[in-house]
Amino acid sequence: MEVFDAIQTMLAVRAYADRPIPPDTVQRIVEAGWLTGSSMNLQPWHFVVVQERETLRKLGALARSGPYTADAALAIVVAIDKESRFGVSDASRAIQSMMLAAWAEGVGSNWVGFHGLDAVKPLLGIPDSFDVFAIIPFGYPAQPVGKGKKKRKALGEVASGERFGTPFSG
Amino acid sequence: MEVFDAIQTMLAVRAYADRPIPPDTVQRIVEAGWLTGSSMNLQPWHFVVVQERETLRKLGALARSGPYTADAALAIVVAIDKESRFGVSDASRAIQSMMLAAWAEGVGSNWVGFHGLDAVKPLLGIPDSFDVFAIIPFGYPAQPVGKGKKKRKALGEVASGERFGTPFSG
Repeated sequence: MEVFDAIQTMLAVRAYADRPIPPDTVQRIVEAGWLTGSSMNLQPWHFVVVQERETLRKLGALARSGPYTADAALAIVVAIDKESRFGVSDASRAIQSMMLAAWAEGVGSNWVGFHGLDAVKPLLGIPDSFDVFAIIPFGYPAQPVGKGKKKRKALGEVASGERFGTPFSG
Repeated sequence: MEVFDAIQTMLAVRAYADRPIPPDTVQRIVEAGWLTGSSMNLQPWHFVVVQERETLRKLGALARSGPYTADAALAIVVAIDKESRFGVSDASRAIQSMMLAAWAEGVGSNWVGFHGLDAVKPLLGIPDSFDVFAIIPFGYPAQPVGKGKKKRKALGEVASGERFGTPFSG
């Protein structure tokens, strides 16, 4: 899938089909995060790739805003080095890369966070030097996914040409 | 360009050819930011799309870490609503989308930030209710861009399988 098409069509998917994600697709999703650029190339992130059902269920129970993680084929828990200055920004870029790479292969996802994720640390053995930043559950959508217009503010409301307040008109 | 290919090959570009970016490409770059998902769909961002040389020069003079902005064909200044709780994360996702959308059409970019950008506000008329988060200069690369291996930590160092510390092996 072309990059712009992926960005234009990607929707949050919170209900997953009972269907595994092929290993090479999982690999590309993980590599998409790994290969993402970061401030000063510090890569202040760690990705825990969870595919065992029992662990997915426990993640779903812990993630208040994402109980559907229990039904995902895959979840990637993203942790940030506490010492990193731009960890939130860097990890957000990596997450966007992973979600787009998945979407390009028909795999939906959603961002589950941001807070109350400390309980995930003992479950996955994440050391104290990291913060758990997000859980991203992935899976093929349970229902066909539409490609309709997204609910967004008008383009001219969020984009200006040359100066703030002059609506961008392309 | 395929999504994974874009993620895999995208490099920071800091030297730009003296060549304009076609309007439809500029439009897609801006739309890529606009269409990106955000926490609770709040879209707490504003994109100021700068193409006037004089303003690009002034941005280059203000951005300590990105003087090369002066030579870019385009710069997008990303501002965040100060009231937003997840603005840094949301805007980082939008920036990743814009950089990937540009790269897919042969346009390079780099992230210039993070701090000392307050002086940009009067230049672009950005109101006090926003923080200037980043300047992203865009342009066709001045030199051919390699597609070599990126400098990254080993995959197993930043990605674990099932539990932190068990290197992910695909």
